[in-house]
Amino acid sequence: MRRSIATVSLSGPLTGKLSAIGAAGFDGVEIFENDLVAGAPSPEEIRARAGDLGLGIDLYQPFRDFEAVPPALLAGNLRRVEHKFAVMERLGATLLLVCSNVSPHSIDDDALAAEQLRLLAERAAGHGVRIAYEALAWGRNVDDYLHAWRIVRMADHPALGLCLDSFHILSRETDPYAIETIPAEKIFFLQLADAPRLPMDVLYWSRHYRCFPGQGDLDVAGLVAHVLRTGYDGPLSLEVFNDVFRQAAAMRTARDAMRSLVFLEEAAAGRLGEAARRLGEASRPASLVPPPPPVSPTGFAFAELSAPRTGPLSELLTALGFRRAGVHTHKPVELWQQNTARILLNTGNAESQDGPALAAIGLETPDPAASVKRAEALLSPVLPRWRDPHDAPLDAVAAPDGTDLFFCRTACPGHPSWTDDFAEDRRDPGHGEITHIDHVALTQPWHLFDEASLFYRSVLGLRPHESLELPDPYGLLRSRAVSTADERVRIAVNVAHVGHVGPHEGTSDVAWQHAALASTDIVATVRRFRAAGAAQLIVPDNYYDDLEARHDLGAERHRLLRELRLLYDKDEHGEFLHFYTATSGRVFFEVVQRIGGYQGYGAVNAPVRLAAQHAPRADHGGTSRSP
Amino acid sequence: MRRSIATVSLSGPLTGKLSAIGAAGFDGVEIFENDLVAGAPSPEEIRARAGDLGLGIDLYQPFRDFEAVPPALLAGNLRRVEHKFAVMERLGATLLLVCSNVSPHSIDDDALAAEQLRLLAERAAGHGVRIAYEALAWGRNVDDYLHAWRIVRMADHPALGLCLDSFHILSRETDPYAIETIPAEKIFFLQLADAPRLPMDVLYWSRHYRCFPGQGDLDVAGLVAHVLRTGYDGPLSLEVFNDVFRQAAAMRTARDAMRSLVFLEEAAAGRLGEAARRLGEASRPASLVPPPPPVSPTGFAFAELSAPRTGPLSELLTALGFRRAGVHTHKPVELWQQNTARILLNTGNAESQDGPALAAIGLETPDPAASVKRAEALLSPVLPRWRDPHDAPLDAVAAPDGTDLFFCRTACPGHPSWTDDFAEDRRDPGHGEITHIDHVALTQPWHLFDEASLFYRSVLGLRPHESLELPDPYGLLRSRAVSTADERVRIAVNVAHVGHVGPHEGTSDVAWQHAALASTDIVATVRRFRAAGAAQLIVPDNYYDDLEARHDLGAERHRLLRELRLLYDKDEHGEFLHFYTATSGRVFFEVVQRIGGYQGYGAVNAPVRLAAQHAPRADHGGTSRSP
Repeated sequence: MRRSIATVSLSGPLTGKLSAIGAAGFDGVEIFENDLVAGAPSPEEIRARAGDLGLGIDLYQPFRDFEAVPPALLAGNLRRVEHKFAVMERLGATLLLVCSNVSPHSIDDDALAAEQLRLLAERAAGHGVRIAYEALAWGRNVDDYLHAWRIVRMADHPALGLCLDSFHILSRETDPYAIETIPAEKIFFLQLADAPRLPMDVLYWSRHYRCFPGQGDLDVAGLVAHVLRTGYDGPLSLEVFNDVFRQAAAMRTARDAMRSLVFLEEAAAGRLGEAARRLGEASRPASLVPPPPPVSPTGFAFAELSAPRTGPLSELLTALGFRRAGVHTHKPVELWQQNTARILLNTGNAESQDGPALAAIGLETPDPAASVKRAEALLSPVLPRWRDPHDAPLDAVAAPDGTDLFFCRTACPGHPSWTDDFAEDRRDPGHGEITHIDHVALTQPWHLFDEASLFYRSVLGLRPHESLELPDPYGLLRSRAVSTADERVRIAVNVAHVGHVGPHEGTSDVAWQHAALASTDIVATVRRFRAAGAAQLIVPDNYYDDLEARHDLGAERHRLLRELRLLYDKDEHGEFLHFYTATSGRVFFEVVQRIGGYQGYGAVNAPVRLAAQHAPRADHGGTSRSP
Repeated sequence: MRRSIATVSLSGPLTGKLSAIGAAGFDGVEIFENDLVAGAPSPEEIRARAGDLGLGIDLYQPFRDFEAVPPALLAGNLRRVEHKFAVMERLGATLLLVCSNVSPHSIDDDALAAEQLRLLAERAAGHGVRIAYEALAWGRNVDDYLHAWRIVRMADHPALGLCLDSFHILSRETDPYAIETIPAEKIFFLQLADAPRLPMDVLYWSRHYRCFPGQGDLDVAGLVAHVLRTGYDGPLSLEVFNDVFRQAAAMRTARDAMRSLVFLEEAAAGRLGEAARRLGEASRPASLVPPPPPVSPTGFAFAELSAPRTGPLSELLTALGFRRAGVHTHKPVELWQQNTARILLNTGNAESQDGPALAAIGLETPDPAASVKRAEALLSPVLPRWRDPHDAPLDAVAAPDGTDLFFCRTACPGHPSWTDDFAEDRRDPGHGEITHIDHVALTQPWHLFDEASLFYRSVLGLRPHESLELPDPYGLLRSRAVSTADERVRIAVNVAHVGHVGPHEGTSDVAWQHAALASTDIVATVRRFRAAGAAQLIVPDNYYDDLEARHDLGAERHRLLRELRLLYDKDEHGEFLHFYTATSGRVFFEVVQRIGGYQGYGAVNAPVRLAAQHAPRADHGGTSRSP
């Protein structure tokens, strides 16, 4: 199907938007009138530019407050629209969006609305233009698509049809099923946007918080499936008003938009298949070409930290019970291991001079090549394989925050393994209580939060969890976890709040990243860690006083938690114990123990952790607190 | 009256918040529990720190979900609160905020609520603690203050009273008048916050968008007057949850908060006086000490631009019909004048090396010394008078964006005038069509928008107009005008949207400032300007095509507007014509002509102006467009 996007979805001047949209591979655009009016290029120049980029101008929008007005206002409205027809002719656009009237002058009279829209369609037809009538969710008298459809049916003119918009329909929780009763030839256009569910007026919500499908909470794929079941084969067009996208680089937003559409088409195809099976229909010929299916990762192969020197990190790892299990045969990379928890320390990375940072994540996958094909189809940058010819193959893509994601099959008989590149140091996987990487937490630049969620969801097939706002002493921190269905791979996507201006100007100093390690006996792990004199993040006594108020765990357990500075949480499934190491560069380690079926990440304790991390070094505890 | 603030209103760790609150001159604080729990200092240390700063701990908060629970949950709640009493004893706090229950376990039974609150008060009294019960606007069963008051009355315990919060009362549009029926001794505490009216759920609105009184749209002063009429003489305490303040420097926010309280007390005293007059009561003894009254400015004396050299600006001014009327006797400052429009060009300012910037504004005032006293009482930095002894006196304060504000009496017989410092060059005020400065537009750092609004409102006594969001190609721009009642002084306060990340990273390059000059014949002014070959901001043809669709002004008028690149707007009072010069550094000039009683600033045209300013230089027109 044809893929389009409204120019209002991107940042910058109109010609720059067109370049970005063309480069991302779209077929067409909706020209948003304000973008044209505010810019110098003439309609003819915009038409030529779009043509050069292979973009059709699929829609011109919006034309407002037309229908169902008193006769005295009609002449003025017809005068207005003649100017639009003139501009559209110069643009080469033949479809005009008319959104339902929001003016207090409009009359609640469907017959009048139909009569005036019929007149408009007749005038439009004379210019070779068709009219797509859209019910705004906040239209004065017409605010749902079935109402708009009754009026279009009543007007009964071949140049008059509907524009359906997923936001206007789903935001009001209108049932999209009835779309299937509309003949395809009367659906002139389909606009798509998602949005997080936010408790606010729908107009305000629409103007500021729309996002690309797959980034929010609306069932856009289900709606698209209903539309496709009518036989609609017009454009799928994204129309997103978003305060962040208004400021972001257009090229990046356009690529994010295209990823969203590819993923949406796959989801919609799945929903069509389900519907066909449910109804016992033959599967229809696919007008949607889905990307290669996702390959679910089965665990973490490794986390790679780059650092100017291994010292501070290897001390922390040693104190946690890790051993150095190997050294890369020809790169300055060490492999540290404990059971299947593997950490690579890379001192050869030029970017690491600021101190340790999480540079890469290795994911176990049954088919690395298929994982990369999936990522490529979803417009992820595939990383060049700058490895030596004798290295094991490594397939990798770049995540939105710049972290490299490697797809691995570790130590699988008959398959080359990345571990083969490491000369055995003491290839003993260790026998401590830490068994594997529980999750990693990455911090995104604030304007890439939605992009990151969609990336992990679409490329890796991870499920998004609830989006949280955590109070940091210097602002709110957004956090959202994504995981495989079996929870074997969990990634926490964090972002510092928009426009940090605290004492640490900019966001880089709160862009902490960490790897959380799963222990089967966290009390033993923390005792060993403290006995080694390693630096633990010191949780204040006030936390334990408050914990006693919140939970009645018995005096002995409270005493142990306080003594060992362990944090505690519980949910309806189980309990969670955790502690943090001191931070080295941007990186720290967390050790966690899940008891029962605890599902979360201890988010309730994040404010305490963040406050301690912001505190001056002297408060950090370190060896003075340990025996 | 005692002035307090909740620690949650500021950014950073608790000890830093206390320092900022003390430095701003507050008498006390509300300790927000999370601030204590997340920090290392013990309650005793916090108590001592507050004591050293002269701050009382007026309230400990919040204690949640206590009242009206099934008996099975009561014991747990009482256990919880004993821990709070212990912490409060260590803090030296004797008042605990209990907010109305939001839990699904709570029961809609006032008698049960009263019984359990009575029990709580009895326990509290044993610890020397009193309970202030507050109706949250989103409380499950109790969400308005009169309901909370019925329950408190029913419970009838001396250690149980009310906490009133302006946000919870005014956000729900509850009538605050009935507060006067509550005995003063049962109002234990008064929390104050303002907020802009935003179309969203009240909980979401409260958590993110509260602001200090005078920065929003709620009638906080009216509410305070009702409370004071009960005889209440407890603290006036600010409690603000705001996404921006969470990130801003605590010292600055605390000063902004204190300015808000001083201004609020003045407004409340005024409302009390009105009420007394209306009811024929004797005016009560003032427990509020208002600051010196505002001195309304009567016009602009000058706008001062600092620039590395005068060249580009003097060319623009000459083309606009200005003449150089004087040169400062011993500073590198020129006075350019046309009628009473005066522009100073200062080449002696070290900060001006980046190109021209608006450095200062001179305001005409009947009493400069009184203007400064007012500013000082409202915590504005008074600028040192680094003038030479033989200069005319200049009283000045710093505005939030760093612009200097000078209070002047220009050429007033019997009074020294700043113009006396200028050697007459050709002291001919000019006879062009430009008569005076219509307004100036300043761009604030994004996190100082609310502070700036309050500054101009409180210090200068200007009236705030509606807050607008204008689409710039790279984000939304907030804009709010403030003016004297007679509109002789108008200032537009603009701010680039939070966290600009477009092609021009950071906000400085969109921090345009301008002076708008009033012309009595803009056609003559623009013709002279163009004839001089000066660079006018070129408005695109697309704007004029669209203008013809929007307004039917007749072919001749449309032709003239297009030819001269004039912009157009109208409102119900009249019409507005304007044009812009090209930008030099951060500065440009606008020429405006108001026809009839037009009230606005041509905001509808701002997106076109912004897009043209962002466009590459080649699109700027300049001399090539002029004859």
